[in-house]
Amino acid sequence: MNKVGIIGLGRFGTFWASVLAQEYQVFGYTRTKPENPPCELVDLDYLCTLPVIYLCVPMRTMPEILDRIAPLLSPGTLVVDTCSVKMEPVRWMLEKLPKSVDIMATHPMFGPESAKEGLSGLPLMMYPVRMVPALYDEWSHFFRNHGIMVVEITPEEHDQQAAISQALTHMVGKTLNAMGIEENPIGTLWYRKLLAICKQVEKDSPELFSDMQKLNPYAIKMREQFKIAWDGECRNLGDSV
Amino acid sequence: MNKVGIIGLGRFGTFWASVLAQEYQVFGYTRTKPENPPCELVDLDYLCTLPVIYLCVPMRTMPEILDRIAPLLSPGTLVVDTCSVKMEPVRWMLEKLPKSVDIMATHPMFGPESAKEGLSGLPLMMYPVRMVPALYDEWSHFFRNHGIMVVEITPEEHDQQAAISQALTHMVGKTLNAMGIEENPIGTLWYRKLLAICKQVEKDSPELFSDMQKLNPYAIKMREQFKIAWDGECRNLGDSV
Repeated sequence: MNKVGIIGLGRFGTFWASVLAQEYQVFGYTRTKPENPPCELVDLDYLCTLPVIYLCVPMRTMPEILDRIAPLLSPGTLVVDTCSVKMEPVRWMLEKLPKSVDIMATHPMFGPESAKEGLSGLPLMMYPVRMVPALYDEWSHFFRNHGIMVVEITPEEHDQQAAISQALTHMVGKTLNAMGIEENPIGTLWYRKLLAICKQVEKDSPELFSDMQKLNPYAIKMREQFKIAWDGECRNLGDSV
Repeated sequence: MNKVGIIGLGRFGTFWASVLAQEYQVFGYTRTKPENPPCELVDLDYLCTLPVIYLCVPMRTMPEILDRIAPLLSPGTLVVDTCSVKMEPVRWMLEKLPKSVDIMATHPMFGPESAKEGLSGLPLMMYPVRMVPALYDEWSHFFRNHGIMVVEITPEEHDQQAAISQALTHMVGKTLNAMGIEENPIGTLWYRKLLAICKQVEKDSPELFSDMQKLNPYAIKMREQFKIAWDGECRNLGDSV
C-alpha cells in the first residue's frame, strides 16, 4: 500500500484522510492533536519523507506551511494543495517549493456534508502544475475509480468559474444568514432548499469564507455583478435604489 | 360528489383542478380555451351558480374578476382566492363581493413542480375571512387528508412571513438569473441546489414575480434588509461599498 501524508486535519483534512485511506496508507500531521485522529499521526519531519503530501491547511496559512516544509522535502516528492482558490496558492507553491519537488493543484468541490451520500458525481478540479505525467494519471484514476468527476482546468479557469459558482453561493448564503432567515411554517420547497444552503455555509469557518472571497481575484467582480443585477431587479419593481 | 368551480386555468389553476378532482367534481372557466382542459369547461354564468369557487387568476386581475362575478353569485356561495399575497386580495374580496357571499383566503405554497413527488408535507395557508365554520373545517380536512400541512394564520401574518421566505427566494433567484448563472463543470452540490431554485423561479411568469414583490407590503422591507446585509458582508471583505 502506497503511503500518503496529509498536513492539516481540520474538518476537511479529516474527511480527506478517509477518502485517501480507501487505497493509501495515510499519515497525518496537525498542529493541535485531534481527539479522534482519522489516521496515524507523525511529526512533520517524518511526514515530509513521504512520496505524496496533501496540504489541507487553511488557505491563509499556506505561505507559512510551505516555508516550513520546503527544506524538509526530498527531490521527487509530490506536493498537492486542496485550496478553494487556485491561482494564488499555485503561485506560492511555485515560489516557495524547491525545483526538485513536483506540484499538483486540486480542488475537491465537496466536503463531509456534500459527500454524505457518496462521492459519485461530485466534481474535483485538478491540474498538473509541475509533475511526472504518470503520477498525474495515477491520481486521476484514483479519483475516477471512486466515482469523482475529474475536471482538468487551469488555475485561472478554476478561479473564474469558482467565483460565479462556489464563491457566489457562499456569498448569498452568508448574506441570508446575516439577515437571520430561519425555518418558516409557510416556507415553500424552494425556500427550504435555500435554507439548506445557508445552513451548510454556516458550517464553514469565517476564514474559509473570507479566503474564498478575497484570494480569488474574480470574486470581487462577481460581487459587483450580483449587486448590479439585484439593483436592476429592484428598479424594475419601482424601488428607489 | 360535490361540485367546485375554478376561475383561471393557467399553470397553477390546471394543477389545482387536478388536486380538487381527487374528491370534487371540478368545473372550470378560463378566458383562453386550454388545449387539454383539466376539467369540464363551462361559461362564467354557470360557474357562478356552483357552491364553491376557487379563483386561480393572476393577482393583478383579481379586482376585475371580482367585479365581473359579484352580480352573478348566489347568497351562500363560498369564494376562495389562492393568491401569493393575502392582505390586498382579501381587502378586494371584502370590498367587491356581496355581503351574502362567504370568503376564504388560501395560499397553497406549492405548485406543479414542488408537488411532483406528492402533496405530503407541503404547506398551505388558509384563513376564514367570512364564512360558516363547518365549511372551513370541511376544506381543512380535505387538505389534511391529502397530506397537506395546513397553516392557519391571518393575511397579515402570511404577508410578513411570505416576504422573508417566498418573495426573498424568488428575488434571489431572479437576480441570479439576471446575472446569467448556469451549469458549471466545477459547480458544488450547493451551487447545483441554488441553480435548481433559479430554474424554478424562471418558470413563473414575470407578472407573478412582480405581483409577489409589489402587492406584498412587507416585501420592500425584505429587499432593503437583504441589501443592507449584502453590503455589510462586502464591507467585511474590504470592498468599497
